[in-house]
Amino acid sequence: MIKIMQDLEYIFNPRSIAVVGASRNPEKQGYRYVEILREFGFEGKIYPVNPKASEILGLKSYPKIGDIAGSVDYVISTIPASGLPKLIEECSTKRVKAIQLYTGRLAETGEEESIRLEEEIAHAAQKNKIRLIGPNCMGIYHPKEGISFSANFPKEGGFVAFLSQSAGHTFEVVYRGGVRGLRFSKVISYGNASDLNEVDFIRYLAHDPETKIISVYIEGVRDTKHFPHVLQEAARMKPTVILKGGRTDAGSRAVSSHTASLAGSRAIWDALCRQAGVIQADTVEEMVDILVTLSFLSPLKGRRVGVAGAGGGGSVAMADECENNGLTVPPLPSDIVAELKRLFPHEGNLIKNPIDLSVTAEGAGIMLEALLYAMELIAKHPEFDLLICDTAVERVLESIEWQGMFQGIVAMFIQIGKESKKPMAVVMRSADSPEEWRWKSIVTEQERCIQAGFPIYPTIARAAKAISEVVKYNLSNATRQ
Amino acid sequence: MIKIMQDLEYIFNPRSIAVVGASRNPEKQGYRYVEILREFGFEGKIYPVNPKASEILGLKSYPKIGDIAGSVDYVISTIPASGLPKLIEECSTKRVKAIQLYTGRLAETGEEESIRLEEEIAHAAQKNKIRLIGPNCMGIYHPKEGISFSANFPKEGGFVAFLSQSAGHTFEVVYRGGVRGLRFSKVISYGNASDLNEVDFIRYLAHDPETKIISVYIEGVRDTKHFPHVLQEAARMKPTVILKGGRTDAGSRAVSSHTASLAGSRAIWDALCRQAGVIQADTVEEMVDILVTLSFLSPLKGRRVGVAGAGGGGSVAMADECENNGLTVPPLPSDIVAELKRLFPHEGNLIKNPIDLSVTAEGAGIMLEALLYAMELIAKHPEFDLLICDTAVERVLESIEWQGMFQGIVAMFIQIGKESKKPMAVVMRSADSPEEWRWKSIVTEQERCIQAGFPIYPTIARAAKAISEVVKYNLSNATRQ
Repeated sequence: MIKIMQDLEYIFNPRSIAVVGASRNPEKQGYRYVEILREFGFEGKIYPVNPKASEILGLKSYPKIGDIAGSVDYVISTIPASGLPKLIEECSTKRVKAIQLYTGRLAETGEEESIRLEEEIAHAAQKNKIRLIGPNCMGIYHPKEGISFSANFPKEGGFVAFLSQSAGHTFEVVYRGGVRGLRFSKVISYGNASDLNEVDFIRYLAHDPETKIISVYIEGVRDTKHFPHVLQEAARMKPTVILKGGRTDAGSRAVSSHTASLAGSRAIWDALCRQAGVIQADTVEEMVDILVTLSFLSPLKGRRVGVAGAGGGGSVAMADECENNGLTVPPLPSDIVAELKRLFPHEGNLIKNPIDLSVTAEGAGIMLEALLYAMELIAKHPEFDLLICDTAVERVLESIEWQGMFQGIVAMFIQIGKESKKPMAVVMRSADSPEEWRWKSIVTEQERCIQAGFPIYPTIARAAKAISEVVKYNLSNATRQ
Repeated sequence: MIKIMQDLEYIFNPRSIAVVGASRNPEKQGYRYVEILREFGFEGKIYPVNPKASEILGLKSYPKIGDIAGSVDYVISTIPASGLPKLIEECSTKRVKAIQLYTGRLAETGEEESIRLEEEIAHAAQKNKIRLIGPNCMGIYHPKEGISFSANFPKEGGFVAFLSQSAGHTFEVVYRGGVRGLRFSKVISYGNASDLNEVDFIRYLAHDPETKIISVYIEGVRDTKHFPHVLQEAARMKPTVILKGGRTDAGSRAVSSHTASLAGSRAIWDALCRQAGVIQADTVEEMVDILVTLSFLSPLKGRRVGVAGAGGGGSVAMADECENNGLTVPPLPSDIVAELKRLFPHEGNLIKNPIDLSVTAEGAGIMLEALLYAMELIAKHPEFDLLICDTAVERVLESIEWQGMFQGIVAMFIQIGKESKKPMAVVMRSADSPEEWRWKSIVTEQERCIQAGFPIYPTIARAAKAISEVVKYNLSNATRQ
C-alpha cells in the first residue's frame, strides 16, 4: 500500500517527462503531448524522443531515451505497439519509474498475438519495476503540476478526481464540467489497465489530500479481489460517483473491443455499489450534473425545494419534474402565507411555491417586491432544504433589447442566494442559440452564476435528478454514521 | 362541427387584426404584437387601438374599435381585465369574429371576483357570437399568414401543430424546435380556455390540411365529455404527442394558479392516452425530440440500430443508452462480417456494431475505408431499421485546427445517410461552448445536417428515448390498423 502510494506520487509529480514518438507534425498525438505540456507550464524537463528529429517545438530532441543526459521519471509513448518491448528495455536502463502508453492496438483488438504482446510488455515492466498506465489511454491530467493531454482543459486545479477507462469520457467530463465550474485535482485515462488498475488509482485518490470528490468511469474490473473493499473504503472517505460502461448486452460487447474488459453482471454491480455507498450515474451527462451538485451544493440535508420559475407553464414543469425525480415541492408554510398577507394584503395569498415570476408582467400586476420577499422567506425557512431558480431563457431572451432584464433576473437570483444560507441551484438552458448575441448573453450569465458560487443545470429535470441522487446519498450516509 | 371549423378558419386567416392596447412603448406587449405582425409580413390590415396615440409604429392608431372604418375580423387585447366587458360590447357592434385575450389576472388568480368576471366575459362573447382565445395567453402563430407573437419564431411554415395551455412552452418548443429544423403549421397558446378549448382546437387540427403532426401541452381538460373521443379521432388521423402539466401533487397545485385548470388524476390520464394511441412526452425537451423524430425519421419500422460513434467510451455509451431506452444494437449479421473479412482480411473481423470511428487514429490502424464500408453495409442491410451517428464533438473539436476533420465527419455521415434508404439520426452535443469558434463550428454543422434532412439530438440518451417512443407508436399503430 505505501509502495503503490509512492509509485503514484512519482507519476503525478514527475520531475521530467520524455515523449517517445514526439513529432513535428501538429496532427500527431506525439506533437500534441509536447505542445500541451508546454502550454500548461509543466515546470520539469520535457524531452522529445524521435530518431529522425533534432528539435521539436523548440526543444532538443533525442534519438532514443538512452541519449538523454538527465534522469527521466516518466515516459509517454506514442510509438506503435511493436516497438514497446525495446522501449521497456531502454527505460529500464534509464531507471524510468513509469510509462504511459498512448500506444494502442493491443489486447482490445481481441487478436491472440496482440493479447500476448500486451502480457509480455506488462511482465517486462513489472520485472524492471516500471509502472504502466494503459495501454490504449490518454494518461494524466494534473493541472497543479502543468500536466495535461488536452489543450481545452482548465489550467486551474480543483478538488474533483476523475478516473476513466475511456479517453473520450475524460474529454466530455473535464471539458463540459469545466465550463460548468468543475475544477479537477487529478484525471486519469487508464485504458486497458495492464498494470496499474482501478484498485490502485481509487485507493490513491481516496488518500490524496488534493481530492475531495472521486468519480470513476469503469468498463471492467481487473482486480476483482480487492475492488469491493477499495470502493467501500473510498466511498467512506469521500463522495464517490461511478458510471459503469457495458451494462447492457450491446454495451458489454462494445466494452470488450474498447478496453478488452469483461463487463460483468449488472445485478452484481448494482449490489456492489449499493453496499459500498457510492452514487451511480446513468450517463456521462448525469455524472457531470452530480459532480456539479457535490461541488457547489453540499451539504444538502433534505429534498424540500423552494422553486422560482419565470413563467406559468415553466412553474408547472418545475413542480412536476422535481417531484418526478425524487424532490418535493411543498406548499408555502402557513407562517410564510400569513407574513405575505400581512405585508401585501391584496397579493400575498396569490403567491405559491413554485413562485411564478412572470406574474409581474403587465396585467397580472403582482409586485416584484412581493415575489422577492416570498423568495427570501423561503430561503430563510427551516421547512425548505434548497432553492431552485429557473431563468426561463427562451422567454426572457426573446429579443436583444431584453438582455438587461435577463441580467437583472440572474443578478436577483445571485443576491438572494448570497444572502441566504440555503443551497441554491440555477437552471439556464444551453447557450446553443444560432444567434451570436443570445449565445454570448447566456454564456456570460452562466459564468456570472458560477463565479458567484451557484451551479448551473441545462434543464430542471437534470437538476432535480442529480440533486435528488446527492440528497439520497447524504441521507443514507448520515444513517450509516 | 362545421360551425367550429369555420370559426377557426376565420381566426387563423383573418383579413384584419386590431390590437387593442397597442402601445408606443417597446417594452409593452401592445407594442410587440403590432411590431411582430409587421415583421412577419401579415398582409391584412393592422389597426392599433389606443385612446391616447394617433400613430403607432407608423400605422394610424384609433381611439377605439368603433372608430376603425374597415371591418375587423380579429382583435388582440392587451388591456386590463376591467376593460373587457366594454371591449366585448364594442366588438359586437363592429361584428368582430374573435378576440384573443393576452389580458390576464382572471380566473387563474383564484379570486372570486376575477372568476366571476371571466365567466361574465365568456357569456357576453357567446351571446354576441364572438369567439374567445384565452384569457391569459399569447394567441396564434400561423407563419404562412404572417401571424406571430414572437420575433424569434421561424418565418417559414411547416406541418407541425402545437396547441399549448402555456405560453412559455410555445417559446421553448417553437424556438428550440425551430433551431432543430421543426417548422410549424399553426401554434396556439390558449391559456384559461374560457371559450375555445382543447376540444375545439384538436378537432380543427385533426382536419387541418396544413397539419401532419399534432402536439399538445395541456394542464386541465375543460370539455371532459368530448375530449376522449376527439383525442382518439385526432390520433387516428395524425401522430399526436401530448405533454401533461400537473402530473404530480405540486404540479397540480401549480396548474390551478397558472390556468385555473383542474389537473385530474394521473392514472386516468395515462389510460386515456394509451387508449387513444397518443405518444406521451415527459418533458418539454422530450416533446421536441419526439417531434423532431416524427418530422425527420418517418417511417421507423423497428428498433434495430446500426451505431457509429467516434470513440471507444462513446461507443459503449451509445450501446448502453440505446438499449436502456428501448432500442436494440444487434451484433453485425454474419453476411456483413463475411463481406468485411473478404475485402479487408486483416481488419474485417475487428469491426463491430457500434462502429468505433476513433480506431482509425494512429496506432490503431484500421482503415477509414473499411469502417465506411461497414457503415454502408449496415445502411443497406434488412436486419437494421435505422442508423445513429455520433459526431463526438468534445473529442473532435478539441482544437481549432481540427474543425476541418469535424466537417469531414459530418459530411461523411450525410453522404452515407443520403445514399442509404435507412432513416439516420445524428448526435451532436449542444453548441454551448464559451469559445466562439467552437460554438460557430457546431452551429454550422448542425444546420448542415438539418438542411440535408437529418435530425440532430444533443445526447444519445435523448435520441434513443425519442426514437424508441416513435417506434413503439408506429408498431402499435400497425397492429391496430
